[in-house]
Amino acid sequence: MNSKYKTIKYKQNKRSDIEDLVSIEEPLEMVVRYKKGNEWVDNSISITMRTPKNDEDLIIGLLFCEGIIQKKSEIEKVESMGEKVGKFDLQNKVRVTLNNGENLDIKHLRRNFLTNSSCGVCGKTSMDSLEIICKTKIKKDIPKIQNSVITKIPDLLRQNQSEFSKTGGIHASALFNKDGQPLVIKEDVGRHNALDKVIGYSLKNSLFDTKSQFIACSGRLSFELVQKTLMANIGLLMGVGAPTSLAIDLAKRFDMTLIGFVKSDSFNIYCGESRILK
Amino acid sequence: MNSKYKTIKYKQNKRSDIEDLVSIEEPLEMVVRYKKGNEWVDNSISITMRTPKNDEDLIIGLLFCEGIIQKKSEIEKVESMGEKVGKFDLQNKVRVTLNNGENLDIKHLRRNFLTNSSCGVCGKTSMDSLEIICKTKIKKDIPKIQNSVITKIPDLLRQNQSEFSKTGGIHASALFNKDGQPLVIKEDVGRHNALDKVIGYSLKNSLFDTKSQFIACSGRLSFELVQKTLMANIGLLMGVGAPTSLAIDLAKRFDMTLIGFVKSDSFNIYCGESRILK
Repeated sequence: MNSKYKTIKYKQNKRSDIEDLVSIEEPLEMVVRYKKGNEWVDNSISITMRTPKNDEDLIIGLLFCEGIIQKKSEIEKVESMGEKVGKFDLQNKVRVTLNNGENLDIKHLRRNFLTNSSCGVCGKTSMDSLEIICKTKIKKDIPKIQNSVITKIPDLLRQNQSEFSKTGGIHASALFNKDGQPLVIKEDVGRHNALDKVIGYSLKNSLFDTKSQFIACSGRLSFELVQKTLMANIGLLMGVGAPTSLAIDLAKRFDMTLIGFVKSDSFNIYCGESRILK
Repeated sequence: MNSKYKTIKYKQNKRSDIEDLVSIEEPLEMVVRYKKGNEWVDNSISITMRTPKNDEDLIIGLLFCEGIIQKKSEIEKVESMGEKVGKFDLQNKVRVTLNNGENLDIKHLRRNFLTNSSCGVCGKTSMDSLEIICKTKIKKDIPKIQNSVITKIPDLLRQNQSEFSKTGGIHASALFNKDGQPLVIKEDVGRHNALDKVIGYSLKNSLFDTKSQFIACSGRLSFELVQKTLMANIGLLMGVGAPTSLAIDLAKRFDMTLIGFVKSDSFNIYCGESRILK
């Protein structure tokens, strides 16, 4: 699933309005229904960010890979539920009815799904709850970044990444000042970890000056990377890869600037163009 | 952090022994310590897969991005703890002592970290616990795959990916038969979701024939992708990207074949070469 987004493309300093096709990212809540004695019990056990379609396959695969079911006959049915929400009019909740309820150890189930927090979704079902946590509001038009600084970022990231050239399998995130000087760069096999490390280091060493800084990432731009940038109160996030739909929607909602597909001669601005100086 | 792994490289049908530098992936358990009344309480709240080094930055960044702390002074100390384990002799447990314990809502904390299960680590601290879940044992030397099938995979993945060419921001996983015919291919913004969808679909439609099939992924090969392949009892996993250390270690332990950096004229075999026919 994808959707068109109005985008501004800069290529060799030429600005044009384009429509970019963006992969859809939406939260999916999984509820497990099983029988305990004579009663049916519903338990919400996980929220995952996914591209809609094939939700049934996703849920069956996930339960199987986690060892919750051993064969498909243990699943009685999988049904989409909840109201259709958001601009894509999707049901973002799935209920799986299991036949093996009597043997189901819900504590084990929950432990199995208590996990890697690096995703940043972490029990938050929607952008609404993010607004509660995130009391800060990005200041409009801060920072201001020269067009020419942006196209230098992929090279700067690469030069300052000590591990990537060795292993080819690691992500980087960095905090830059508005002139494109890297203040801290961290690497990790997990994209979100790399950004957490940058934010943790910057906080610890009082490096943040939100008026004049931006964050850059080596990979794709998902919801959680925008969320983390937002928590750090930084107004501009750029990445070498593609953004997801929810990353753009979140950035728009908080007046951030989101730039994707950054290359040595071009980039796409998904929102917040006013921070870019020609 | 990285480590050397003995690897077999095939390039234009020429086989050579090389040493490949691989990014290290290891689990990190986070324990939060805070004061309730006069007592100090320790609570293990998350396990995340990360590249070691900068664990303190990672933890501070994570707590900050989740809204658990608002400023660094709320952290009294961060300390590595537990025994040094594994071949890299690492402490994979960190304890954070917080000053804001009185105001800490541990239920909220847990909810914040109850999350995206797609990582596959999901409360499992080590490969040992995986062995308990994974009762099946991969059959040695099954399947047998022609060398020439492997180099066709990147093109086959690309041709069958309906979304990637449009958005440039989506991962694919596929189940192939040993002749390189795709049986099912699924896409998702999350790598692990794409593989979960493939496994769920294959299970639902009784597609698995573990004697003659392999799985291929568009991206890097992490621990959890190997784990999911293992749960499906498939003996061979290949990917267009780099593997992590833990992916290789897990594949070795279960006699799987793991192939990375698959290109149209070359690939690297990290373990299980006996399944590859010249």
